[in-house]
Amino acid sequence: MIVPRLIERKRDGHALEASELRELVMAYAGGRVPDYQLAALLMAIYFRGLDRTEMTALMNAMLDSGKRLDLSRLAVPRIDKHSTGGVGDKVSLVLAPIIASLGVAVPMMSGRGLGHTGGTLDKLESIPGFRTSLSLAEAEQQLREIGCAMLGQSAEIVPADRKLYALRDATATVEVIPLIASSIMSKKVAESLTGLVLDIKRGPGAFLPGLEDELALAAAMIDLGAQHDVPVVALLTAMDRPLGWACGNALEVAEAVVILQGAGPADVLEVTLALGGEMLQLAALASTPEGGRQLMRDAIASGKALLKLEEIIAAQGGDKRILSDLSRLPQAPQRATFAAPRDGIIQAVEPRAVGYGVIALGGGRRNMEDKVDPSVGYVITAKPGDRVTKGQSLATIHARSRADLEVGAQALEQAIMIGDRADDVRRLPLVSHRVTARGVKVLAEGVS
Amino acid sequence: MIVPRLIERKRDGHALEASELRELVMAYAGGRVPDYQLAALLMAIYFRGLDRTEMTALMNAMLDSGKRLDLSRLAVPRIDKHSTGGVGDKVSLVLAPIIASLGVAVPMMSGRGLGHTGGTLDKLESIPGFRTSLSLAEAEQQLREIGCAMLGQSAEIVPADRKLYALRDATATVEVIPLIASSIMSKKVAESLTGLVLDIKRGPGAFLPGLEDELALAAAMIDLGAQHDVPVVALLTAMDRPLGWACGNALEVAEAVVILQGAGPADVLEVTLALGGEMLQLAALASTPEGGRQLMRDAIASGKALLKLEEIIAAQGGDKRILSDLSRLPQAPQRATFAAPRDGIIQAVEPRAVGYGVIALGGGRRNMEDKVDPSVGYVITAKPGDRVTKGQSLATIHARSRADLEVGAQALEQAIMIGDRADDVRRLPLVSHRVTARGVKVLAEGVS
Repeated sequence: MIVPRLIERKRDGHALEASELRELVMAYAGGRVPDYQLAALLMAIYFRGLDRTEMTALMNAMLDSGKRLDLSRLAVPRIDKHSTGGVGDKVSLVLAPIIASLGVAVPMMSGRGLGHTGGTLDKLESIPGFRTSLSLAEAEQQLREIGCAMLGQSAEIVPADRKLYALRDATATVEVIPLIASSIMSKKVAESLTGLVLDIKRGPGAFLPGLEDELALAAAMIDLGAQHDVPVVALLTAMDRPLGWACGNALEVAEAVVILQGAGPADVLEVTLALGGEMLQLAALASTPEGGRQLMRDAIASGKALLKLEEIIAAQGGDKRILSDLSRLPQAPQRATFAAPRDGIIQAVEPRAVGYGVIALGGGRRNMEDKVDPSVGYVITAKPGDRVTKGQSLATIHARSRADLEVGAQALEQAIMIGDRADDVRRLPLVSHRVTARGVKVLAEGVS
Repeated sequence: MIVPRLIERKRDGHALEASELRELVMAYAGGRVPDYQLAALLMAIYFRGLDRTEMTALMNAMLDSGKRLDLSRLAVPRIDKHSTGGVGDKVSLVLAPIIASLGVAVPMMSGRGLGHTGGTLDKLESIPGFRTSLSLAEAEQQLREIGCAMLGQSAEIVPADRKLYALRDATATVEVIPLIASSIMSKKVAESLTGLVLDIKRGPGAFLPGLEDELALAAAMIDLGAQHDVPVVALLTAMDRPLGWACGNALEVAEAVVILQGAGPADVLEVTLALGGEMLQLAALASTPEGGRQLMRDAIASGKALLKLEEIIAAQGGDKRILSDLSRLPQAPQRATFAAPRDGIIQAVEPRAVGYGVIALGGGRRNMEDKVDPSVGYVITAKPGDRVTKGQSLATIHARSRADLEVGAQALEQAIMIGDRADDVRRLPLVSHRVTARGVKVLAEGVS
């Protein structure tokens, strides 16, 4: 294997052999091929793409670079949910305990916030004492005992992907569909799932720009899953506005708890039910997604979903008293309301601007090394289409200092647009498409 | 400067600011930006190109990353020749002593063989004792004393280019016109020249594929030279067959000596006279290139060009006795003639196949770390258009072992094509185009 010749062939638009890609990924994971050669290849792939054979070879090589969760002694279905990332997306915190409380094992391996989006690990770690760095053995034991483990990607699982992802982030080669698909699916197959539900975000707050890209990504991941006998269902959901009200780590945990208590914003619950219904159908615990939704509503109403969250928090070393006293979560020292500057109709709440506002407040990362302040962020109750009057509170800013309150307010001024006409407001349907191995089904047309 | 954002902008087809490129190159030379980020940027540049402002900024940053030759105390013109690289191209070894013997300072900084092409440094080092790693101070003194120094690129001169070039070679990003142009011109401007002549190779043995690319490269280098008051003249010369007979380091030195003695293959002399005529006109020692050619012929006939080569060899620690006894050059232990396998007309002598044959014999590099055997190679006297009879000697193979003689013969079987018709033979004109700041002049049309 002469690496510059491989790079040259991809650069010139030729396909690489599966065996070549495998050898390359293994050599890279083993430190025998330098970062700079992979970086050049990744950029060539950005321009030239990967065909199906190449994408599959890449996923399989990454998968074989590490271990897998051994869940063979679990008799129950093993279903996970993965989101491509958004702003205010605390669905995992609500969904995992509900589904686990219904007898499905949920081995949920999550990531940290990156770019303008938040990450489930950062949110969980805002719970005092909560530990996400479980070993595979710990995760396996916890899954057997309580049916759910919420952990980060360790060095044991797909180390090649871990190394490659960090390189992609540093070299502007993240947004490539076959690379995204093989990266996600290598991790998910390593979880030994019996089914996977994808939440693919659409709209200006999503990583990929257009609907066509999102459908292509869904199709690629469904295909890769099928090759490992993991059925995959993808839902396309709206990320043209933040999901729910809270944006910021501890604030989102609090909102998730409130939803499990039967209250909170309706949109988060709706996306959770949609995704969970699919998970329960994949688990054969419901014959339709609609049947699954009813099971989930019951799990919330009976309190058993909240109880499952308590078990998860306790098992991972967290302070379960937050569930009865949310003020035990980290609290920002400064708070201020953000008032409507004029009368009118909310035209948009731009999720990237909100996400970057959270980062500016100290609640997200500019670099992987940055430390996150779990207490800061926003609670934005205003939604596109709402009629507001001047001086009315649209949001609360949670900040570390009075100066930061100003910074946070400036971001909201950019994010929240107020106009005069109601019929100018464009909103994506909360859940618009369902994609399976059989094709794409449009659930809700256009914008509302 | 956030490097991934710079990569992203170039990736998306936007131009970078001159100040950004400068900061990036300086940070890279200083080890503050990792190779992998530059590698991704280089591949993005491969696909998106660099505009004139970017190319100029790149050259100037590389130039300012190191020192320059201080030739301010030299009252004479300072002219160099640079070739884009070919097979059998020993022109520098003939040209530099001729031009220096006529009173022009020739500060010739050369490279090593790479890809299928040979390098002047490797050829010089086949002379026992010859030292090419001169310091800038040594080169300056030698230029004052004898008017010529033939040296390699040291860490003192354009270190950023040195580092970037090695990275390009390892990442399949060599063949990019603005990168080639800025790399060459940064080194040439650092030589403090008063004029530069370029030998841009054309044909299947050249690095760049087509005439359009070669003219664009010439134009880019002329432009970059003009920005530093270095007038540049480029000649396009044939590389659809090896230049001269000898291909291999010591064999090419021997051929160069024979030419300076007034014999040897006509094509090497013709290219040398063409390039040297331009150098002498740039030096104002001749009013036309034709006038310069006559001065050069006289320098050969009088023996003063050969005497200058003797001075250069002696000054750089080499054994000048090779000039009177070529058998003092390294000799390969095994020799064999390569005979025509059939009657016919030589249709082609494919230079890449010959170049790779020299590498297979041990006379070139597969990697920068490879050691070169100076003794091995070919002397191919057959030229396209020659009528040959079966069994007639077309070439001599010089090898380290009997087994290698076989390897060498196989390469020649690939390289030398014999057909039946004389009018099928296509040869590029030896010197076809002359390019200056005023434009392109066609010297010889089409193929002969």
